[in-house]
Amino acid sequence: MNYFSSDFKLGILGGGQLGKMLLFDTRKFDIQTYVLDPSDEAPSKIACNKFFQGDLMDYDTVYNFGKQVDVLTFEIELVNLEALTQLENEGLKVYPSPKTLKGIQNKGIQKQFYAANNIPTAPFERFENLENLKSTIVNQQSKINLPFVWKCTEFGYDGNGVKVIRQVSDLDTLPNVECIAETMVPFKNELAVIVVRNPSGEIKTYPVVEMEFHPEANQVEYVICPARIGEKVAQKARAIALNVSEKFNHVGLLAVEMFQTNEDEILVNEVAPRPHNSGHYSIEASYTSQFENHLRAILDLPLGNTDSKVAGIMVNLVGAEGFSGNVVYENIETILGWNGVTPHIYGKKQTRPFRKMGHVTIVNEDMAEARRIAQEVKNTIRVISN
Amino acid sequence: MNYFSSDFKLGILGGGQLGKMLLFDTRKFDIQTYVLDPSDEAPSKIACNKFFQGDLMDYDTVYNFGKQVDVLTFEIELVNLEALTQLENEGLKVYPSPKTLKGIQNKGIQKQFYAANNIPTAPFERFENLENLKSTIVNQQSKINLPFVWKCTEFGYDGNGVKVIRQVSDLDTLPNVECIAETMVPFKNELAVIVVRNPSGEIKTYPVVEMEFHPEANQVEYVICPARIGEKVAQKARAIALNVSEKFNHVGLLAVEMFQTNEDEILVNEVAPRPHNSGHYSIEASYTSQFENHLRAILDLPLGNTDSKVAGIMVNLVGAEGFSGNVVYENIETILGWNGVTPHIYGKKQTRPFRKMGHVTIVNEDMAEARRIAQEVKNTIRVISN
Repeated sequence: MNYFSSDFKLGILGGGQLGKMLLFDTRKFDIQTYVLDPSDEAPSKIACNKFFQGDLMDYDTVYNFGKQVDVLTFEIELVNLEALTQLENEGLKVYPSPKTLKGIQNKGIQKQFYAANNIPTAPFERFENLENLKSTIVNQQSKINLPFVWKCTEFGYDGNGVKVIRQVSDLDTLPNVECIAETMVPFKNELAVIVVRNPSGEIKTYPVVEMEFHPEANQVEYVICPARIGEKVAQKARAIALNVSEKFNHVGLLAVEMFQTNEDEILVNEVAPRPHNSGHYSIEASYTSQFENHLRAILDLPLGNTDSKVAGIMVNLVGAEGFSGNVVYENIETILGWNGVTPHIYGKKQTRPFRKMGHVTIVNEDMAEARRIAQEVKNTIRVISN
Repeated sequence: MNYFSSDFKLGILGGGQLGKMLLFDTRKFDIQTYVLDPSDEAPSKIACNKFFQGDLMDYDTVYNFGKQVDVLTFEIELVNLEALTQLENEGLKVYPSPKTLKGIQNKGIQKQFYAANNIPTAPFERFENLENLKSTIVNQQSKINLPFVWKCTEFGYDGNGVKVIRQVSDLDTLPNVECIAETMVPFKNELAVIVVRNPSGEIKTYPVVEMEFHPEANQVEYVICPARIGEKVAQKARAIALNVSEKFNHVGLLAVEMFQTNEDEILVNEVAPRPHNSGHYSIEASYTSQFENHLRAILDLPLGNTDSKVAGIMVNLVGAEGFSGNVVYENIETILGWNGVTPHIYGKKQTRPFRKMGHVTIVNEDMAEARRIAQEVKNTIRVISN
């Protein structure tokens, strides 16, 4: 198949920042792209060859979009699975496969998959709805004890749909939907490993990254590559991520989020079958970025080197509290003056509190220096409105 | 000035591959771009916010385009200088300034500029037309002896407009235009240094690169960063490039091409006030690519680190002889499987012999290994037609 400067067409469901960053590489290779997104202001609207506005959860919209392309991928999991399945049955290459997506879209099924495949994960129970969970807890029929983590199984995103339950009354405000209750396992690190695999079965892992949390607010502040952990734990994390990838038999990227417990056990938290926030550092730090490797994988091209050239740290740029409206990146000129600092502005014109507006990557030969600059960046740039 | 996700508009004259690569960084920073190019199939046509088709040498076209933007730059020197001058007089920020461009567009004026500013360059004489040159040579009134290099002063590009004259009859096929005759100075290396400077006067140089030629064909095969030369010569080359930049008082990038003579003297050959083929390696190898630094410079933002993370080598992809038509990149899948290899496909649908269709960057911690892989790349990929 000739992909380069040819009539070949890659379809991408979703036109957010992940799609936008994937488009840098389709442009670099001159591969034609069609993008479908509900928003007329989607970040991917420019740099694709053809943009379609439409509902990603609508069967006909997704099906008709898929019929126009040669390979179909997605940058968001919330897409119409039936349409993808039908397209795949009709012979279209859909990567990752709807079969893989089906095992991931629903967190209950995902957790059961880990249990069935002996992949270490925190103990859990799955409930059809909140009422079932409540009565099980009240009647003390559950092996899950308070406090525990409630997660809705579908349509959760970026921390929505997750809540720590310390007493039964904490359940009162939650929606009556399918959910899981998960044991709260004390952990010392949140780690992630991105795996990339092509249809021919070539498979590579990126180095283990570490999510550093704010000591008070329960919010990821920095994604750090490589994680500042021992070599033995890093090897274990990569081996488990590889195992998860092989069991899912996925194609493209698979971001595997994990906990490192106080006893240095690795527990799989959840996975995402697409480019992931925890891999953004790779654009500047890695020989091959996660986006380029996703593209290589779904086109069954040889995978690129996942090693790092230098240490990389990512800081998310989210809308500051108290500001809504036309976005202004306060002090961005200041941080641009520092060594190895690259802002990525996603292109959303309107900021809102906690909206993901961009990220900043800091690279340096010396990890401690990168970490110091990252902290300065975090303390200096602010996403406000004018 | 708020450039990021705002109403600010950057205008770019020319929509070729240099503009296309510059657009990666305008997209990364979400800076609005308007592009003017004569071709409806220009590589920059997608990824800019608005594309205008028109003649870059036409006064009204360039003037009217310029009136729509806040800052104007160019990715090709062959643009209407009068329109740029008028726009600058009316208060538009035009970077590099038309004054700088005027001193560069005509190679005769450029060479006289070096002579007037004590910048080392090969001896030359300027002639109003070919007839004047001929009679001077025939009457032995010239201080330039055979063999010498003939260069037309305007509109030359990529080796067009340059010829080695070994006997008077070699002049017979040349056009009767303004030209210079330049002494052929034996040299052991062709070097280049890219300088970047912003309106506030911040100035940085990239490392010295080396152009390695094919031993038989007189064609650049590899651009190698850093050049495999002594530290003393490298320092001298960077100092001369800085001096050239300061004398031109330019804003943006200035690529300074130089000869290293057998006696380790550095002679300035010519300059280009824009992103340059000799800086393409910087996308993968440098902390900040030449394109991002050009953008930072013309927006008067702080300049990025010009150091390299790893060694970088660039191989041009030009159309193979004997092939014209729809392009095919033969064996591109093979080279994608090698460590640190990134092809850049410019997006021209039609190949012709020697047409610049793309380039391949090879990066590695180890220069010798990068050089070995670069040779394999050169021997493997071929730009043909189907």
